[in-house]
Amino acid sequence: MGKIFQFPYEVAHYDTDLTGKMTLERLIAVTILGSEKQSKLLNRDANYLLPLGLGWVITQYEIVIHKMPETFDTVHFFTEATQWNKFFCYRNFWVENDAGEKLVEIQSTFVLMDLKTRKVKTVDEEIIAPFGGEKVNKIIRSEKIPQVTYEKSIPYRVRYFDLDVNQHVNNSKYFSWMLDPLGSEFLKSHQLKTVSIRFDQEVGEGMTIESRIHQEEKTTYHQIVTGDTLCTEARITWK
Amino acid sequence: MGKIFQFPYEVAHYDTDLTGKMTLERLIAVTILGSEKQSKLLNRDANYLLPLGLGWVITQYEIVIHKMPETFDTVHFFTEATQWNKFFCYRNFWVENDAGEKLVEIQSTFVLMDLKTRKVKTVDEEIIAPFGGEKVNKIIRSEKIPQVTYEKSIPYRVRYFDLDVNQHVNNSKYFSWMLDPLGSEFLKSHQLKTVSIRFDQEVGEGMTIESRIHQEEKTTYHQIVTGDTLCTEARITWK
Repeated sequence: MGKIFQFPYEVAHYDTDLTGKMTLERLIAVTILGSEKQSKLLNRDANYLLPLGLGWVITQYEIVIHKMPETFDTVHFFTEATQWNKFFCYRNFWVENDAGEKLVEIQSTFVLMDLKTRKVKTVDEEIIAPFGGEKVNKIIRSEKIPQVTYEKSIPYRVRYFDLDVNQHVNNSKYFSWMLDPLGSEFLKSHQLKTVSIRFDQEVGEGMTIESRIHQEEKTTYHQIVTGDTLCTEARITWK
Repeated sequence: MGKIFQFPYEVAHYDTDLTGKMTLERLIAVTILGSEKQSKLLNRDANYLLPLGLGWVITQYEIVIHKMPETFDTVHFFTEATQWNKFFCYRNFWVENDAGEKLVEIQSTFVLMDLKTRKVKTVDEEIIAPFGGEKVNKIIRSEKIPQVTYEKSIPYRVRYFDLDVNQHVNNSKYFSWMLDPLGSEFLKSHQLKTVSIRFDQEVGEGMTIESRIHQEEKTTYHQIVTGDTLCTEARITWK
């Protein structure tokens, strides 16, 4: 069992869309704040990693939304680094209301990246041990997102304020690129149920990405590509 | 003297740009949270205004940035509704660090809008009295932004997640539209000193705006237009 870290959060007007529900972009941004706060507390934040030339990169989320938090809700964001192996670190996040009901559950996969070569590095016990997770040999594999034909594609130019301190687009931004092409009629009348997303390639300054979608009745498929390069792939189910 | 409301805020990774400094969009978003919190506390929030068919609209900011907050800084956001007359309510905001130094100062003008007709309504004492500001006759006029020739213009399509619960683009979003055309070389090497901005027309769903800029050495001029309609005009000074 890893150490559990939690913090309260009051959902603000700027966290929500025109239906008053938290956006996926803001949900993930605040979620990641939990792992940042825990890393700082355990002295394993950027101040520790940067001198080693390392940084964390998220490669995958499996998100289940039972009930999306709304404006002025006070909720509690939790995180626990559960398991790790030679290359992958697994971290759970969840959001509870005051009554302790789980509103959102997120499984995530992190890798350590060499910031110079942008290649994945093996996980050193020294870095991960303070989080208290279990060392395992097995690799957790998510269900593959099936191949589909994408019928719609909209370009998005990377803007200056999309870039974060790591000089690339923070992956919370991808969610708004992915959902926007679905259009307001669909987005106003559907609610998120599950999101499976895999991040393959980073997106950086000066790029224009294409956000491709394929819509079935209660499931949508998404790709973010730059030229021939697949950056991100996702499947979302709706209610 | 109006009642002063304050709250602490820890600047998060998602509040800052690639230089680690808070973005103008996030600074204004969190600033406005202060007036939302105070309105809720005084029972003058949307739950009070919506049944009357009214909402607040911001028409102007005069912003002075002494030192922009950075990632992980804990700062204190203050607000005070200082004065009001028949049509305009004046509210000051400021941000202090732990030592009580003023990092940012903002003067703002609010008007009450009839949400059906989208026209300005006169300010009723019943609505504004709880904030404790002074009733005055004088109208505060800001210096006019001089006419200049705009040499560059970039289009921005309004995206679904730009819209807030009032079905229009929250004006904090305008700041990123305004600054992005300056380009990363300029934005990485300059820091905000003052921002004078006037909001004339709302921007809504389905629109594409043009963000026009004119650059002088330490001053930039900005307009946001849709077709022939001027929505917003700003002058920014830099250091």
